Amino acid sequence: MIKVKKIEHVGVAVRDCSKAATVYGLLGLGVHCTEDIPDRALKVAMLPVGEGEGEIELMQPTTADSTVAKFLEKRGEGIHHLALSVEDIDDAVKQLLESGVRMIDNAPKPGAGGKRVAFVHPQSACGVLVELVEELQ
Amino acid sequence: MIKVKKIEHVGVAVRDCSKAATVYGLLGLGVHCTEDIPDRALKVAMLPVGEGEGEIELMQPTTADSTVAKFLEKRGEGIHHLALSVEDIDDAVKQLLESGVRMIDNAPKPGAGGKRVAFVHPQSACGVLVELVEELQ
Repeated sequence: MIKVKKIEHVGVAVRDCSKAATVYGLLGLGVHCTEDIPDRALKVAMLPVGEGEGEIELMQPTTADSTVAKFLEKRGEGIHHLALSVEDIDDAVKQLLESGVRMIDNAPKPGAGGKRVAFVHPQSACGVLVELVEELQ
Repeated sequence: MIKVKKIEHVGVAVRDCSKAATVYGLLGLGVHCTEDIPDRALKVAMLPVGEGEGEIELMQPTTADSTVAKFLEKRGEGIHHLALSVEDIDDAVKQLLESGVRMIDNAPKPGAGGKRVAFVHPQSACGVLVELVEELQ
């Protein structure tokens, strides 16, 4: 049984991180940090919700042909993925593959903030792109 | 400034709550309770994530003309909304209206589990349907 610890973050695809941060500021959420992730052609801003209670990740594409740019083109701004933190990501991925769950990543890879992540295919999670995250020790 | 406490839940529109619960069971999430909400033509299943760390709300429409049924028809299964718990929902709604935020509900109304809720229009949250929730005291 996979041990899921919490909703680590909710990823929101946006056209402009700064404008989106202003909008979310009105909802009571401030930017904690921003990060460029060239490998994924993304600029992200992390907005903590409460204390240690998960975050909103605003994701702005930095190239026109990136995955998030295509998402925006097709569906417009909105929720892109749901990240769940798990205790042991290697074991979680192993268990999911054994259960026949369709994974985008068959092994953990480096994600934002230096954490190890693995994506579950939406076909195996009722249309939801689920990111598994192992928090830094 | 609105005080947001945590990601209270993430709502996922599904065609069949029982089948979806089986799928999410593989991801390590079990059903805590189910509830029929005739007012919103919904059957929901709540799946706690960790201990007191938010939930996944699986939402199955019970009529063909409900909002969630239309969502499924248009976009298929997937994330429907993001619920944030706030300390004082009356004050939060008042502040948002004063800031020019477009609300679906200009005053709190009863939601799932007897909690008071109010929805922010996606136009005012980068395409995200945000539900504000005041937890039961």
